[in-house]
Amino acid sequence: MKTVLFSETLEQQIRAAIKDHDLDQLSALLTEEHPADIADILDRLKHDDRMRVFRHLPPEQAAEVLSETDVGATRALVHSLTPDEIRILFHQISIDDVVEILGEDLPRERQELLATLEPDEARAIRAMLAYPPRSAGRLMTEAFIRVQATMTGGEVLRLLQHSGQDAENINDLYVLDEQEHLQGVARLRDVLAAPPERALNDILEHSPVTVAPETDQEEVARLVSQYDLLSLPVVEVDQRMLGIVTVDDVLDVLVQEGTEDVLRLGGVQSGATDETYFGVPIIRAIQRRVGWLLLLFLTGIVTVNVLELFEGVLEQQVALSFFIPLLIGTGGNTGAQTVSTIVRSLALEEVRLRDVWRVVGREITGGLLLGILLGIVGFGLTLLLGNTLAVALVVSLTIVAICTWANVMGAVVPLLVRRLGLDPALVSAPLITTLVDATGLTIYMLIAKLVLGL
Amino acid sequence: MKTVLFSETLEQQIRAAIKDHDLDQLSALLTEEHPADIADILDRLKHDDRMRVFRHLPPEQAAEVLSETDVGATRALVHSLTPDEIRILFHQISIDDVVEILGEDLPRERQELLATLEPDEARAIRAMLAYPPRSAGRLMTEAFIRVQATMTGGEVLRLLQHSGQDAENINDLYVLDEQEHLQGVARLRDVLAAPPERALNDILEHSPVTVAPETDQEEVARLVSQYDLLSLPVVEVDQRMLGIVTVDDVLDVLVQEGTEDVLRLGGVQSGATDETYFGVPIIRAIQRRVGWLLLLFLTGIVTVNVLELFEGVLEQQVALSFFIPLLIGTGGNTGAQTVSTIVRSLALEEVRLRDVWRVVGREITGGLLLGILLGIVGFGLTLLLGNTLAVALVVSLTIVAICTWANVMGAVVPLLVRRLGLDPALVSAPLITTLVDATGLTIYMLIAKLVLGL
Repeated sequence: MKTVLFSETLEQQIRAAIKDHDLDQLSALLTEEHPADIADILDRLKHDDRMRVFRHLPPEQAAEVLSETDVGATRALVHSLTPDEIRILFHQISIDDVVEILGEDLPRERQELLATLEPDEARAIRAMLAYPPRSAGRLMTEAFIRVQATMTGGEVLRLLQHSGQDAENINDLYVLDEQEHLQGVARLRDVLAAPPERALNDILEHSPVTVAPETDQEEVARLVSQYDLLSLPVVEVDQRMLGIVTVDDVLDVLVQEGTEDVLRLGGVQSGATDETYFGVPIIRAIQRRVGWLLLLFLTGIVTVNVLELFEGVLEQQVALSFFIPLLIGTGGNTGAQTVSTIVRSLALEEVRLRDVWRVVGREITGGLLLGILLGIVGFGLTLLLGNTLAVALVVSLTIVAICTWANVMGAVVPLLVRRLGLDPALVSAPLITTLVDATGLTIYMLIAKLVLGL
Repeated sequence: MKTVLFSETLEQQIRAAIKDHDLDQLSALLTEEHPADIADILDRLKHDDRMRVFRHLPPEQAAEVLSETDVGATRALVHSLTPDEIRILFHQISIDDVVEILGEDLPRERQELLATLEPDEARAIRAMLAYPPRSAGRLMTEAFIRVQATMTGGEVLRLLQHSGQDAENINDLYVLDEQEHLQGVARLRDVLAAPPERALNDILEHSPVTVAPETDQEEVARLVSQYDLLSLPVVEVDQRMLGIVTVDDVLDVLVQEGTEDVLRLGGVQSGATDETYFGVPIIRAIQRRVGWLLLLFLTGIVTVNVLELFEGVLEQQVALSFFIPLLIGTGGNTGAQTVSTIVRSLALEEVRLRDVWRVVGREITGGLLLGILLGIVGFGLTLLLGNTLAVALVVSLTIVAICTWANVMGAVVPLLVRRLGLDPALVSAPLITTLVDATGLTIYMLIAKLVLGL
């Protein structure tokens, strides 16, 4: 059983072999390993060592490793290779992997590298690179099984005997007409179960789920997972078939999109899809954060103005200022909870735009319940800390109001962003927290003025 | 092409057919649809309408729909069915789907429902339910292809002709000995490419990746995605094969885990894996949030004490209190960014425990850079708002210190939680924000005392 522990030992063994210049040992360690495991180790090695290990791999294995390394390692490796070496490597891996490397990892070197490839290959890659990043067109492969409706089961099996090895998925046989239009899909299991002389026409599924090459990878993943597909055909408007997106690419997409969702919720702009923590130069990591941080900082300046506005109230009751961090913090936490719930529900299409009033109703109720509960606790604690009944009342009423308000903001802002045609995942927890800060302070000060008669 | 828009229209058509009591139209609408699409619509219908549509489905389709509905709809449907009806439905779907329904959706009714099933079936289901929730044992199916090493390619094809239809994956043929020990895996594409008289023994992969039935579903998903598998064999310690986890279950796992990660980062405890926003009663949704919210509220009380402690400083320089929300807000935002980055990197194993000092070094540098940048902006803005040079200096120095501190906390707390053997995803953005609030205020007040000589 291969486990992470085993793979860590492998890393240590490889590091030891490099240190001892024991090349035989290095070869012995690498030959049996899966390319994905070798790639994980290369990601973590210093560049000189990485190159040493990489050059030690047979071309076929090296090519597969290259398509699995993270963006930093891929860039460094390609920069150290000669054009000839790159051509040989790219020739070994499937075209969608080459497109991923050129599109995500090496956008600047793209033209230069394409020039070193064979014209036919370069043309096919250029066509795929013309589709938008993160679209079905970028993920698809042409290595699918093409059949005709008139073929019998026996003919299909003979076809698979010769060309099955190169196809990415042999379960789904795509029936095309002479102009390459998709007419239907036959499942290999149905072909095997039917008599060998039966034509595919009889066991065909005529309207399979398809996508356009421009379809976003998130929608591709949703369809593959909704319909339990092993591959999803990509077709032009006229049903001309371009390729398939296979389920292993969809697994990668789901992991990438999961990373993006978590980072965005934390207020970090996401970068290339195969970046790792240590693989990104620190300056680039800072660049991904500074935009949001600065915007939130500038928005936060409003809180200074709000408090200046109520300077008189704060001077008369200094105790009120002690509760500021607690109150806006509670509002921020409530808002962060709601925004994570809503953003996810929107992504999974559990909540749609037309549900907006149902959502608002639900979040007002939820916020009130949470606020009343925390308000009661807050009332008792404020008194315990030696404050007057009036201050305790102000604090607890503010908690109720802020929780309700934050709950509604956390739901409405993502819905509003979706209404504007943008991705609701742009709404981060820090954004809601910051928005709730200024409004929460205003609510606090107004309640204080009202209750204390200031 | 099936799209969401189409599916929404279907929902409207179904609602109209129910309203008009047009049963023929209802049947016509449903027969062609994919069970997953019907399930999505049932999730959103009122219970009476849901039952009406469900009873209108032929048993086979109904069973598949039941395995796709969300937890709320599944519970409601099962409660309205007779034991006989349930037995018929459960008999139609694969055993892993029954286990999922009984384990996740109907834990209370489990025993009662098991009693209605046939003894053999009930025994198999009980065995799977004995494995921990979210483990490989709960996800696996026994519907895999068993072969012997001595079988020829031709014999395998004849086997598939008869039993291929019931298997969940026909690509991977599992070679077992007489005691059901896993000896290797043969790929169908290799079988098809080899001469029909060649024995499997020659084309066998001898040590495939396997998992134990107790393995967590997150690790299962990681392995399937790392090695691009279509199914992963589940074996006992002695290599006796129990079943396979198929890639379509892994897709569901990744979506579920993605939801859980986003909710946890927002400070919401997650519930059953197939819950939807509207499917959860509001009281239960509140229960999932109130624990964290209350804990954070009580932790936040410390900020009140900190400010009381520095009451003298705040009274001498009232202007200092105006900057409190801005400063702790900035600290919270910085910490939220870091925690989302680190939690995700830990989940993807890009960062490991032994990297702790590299991480701390990186986050100190990053925090300093961000802090200096925001500090310069803050210095200018504080002066612009009419404050003294001294106050501007206090504010900007605090920004530098708080950003660095929050950045380190956002990285160290998840690593510490992992060190304690817990899941780092427990560390939410609100938790870091709350922790940074109290310490940030102390830093602010200490810098103020030092610079202003109070």
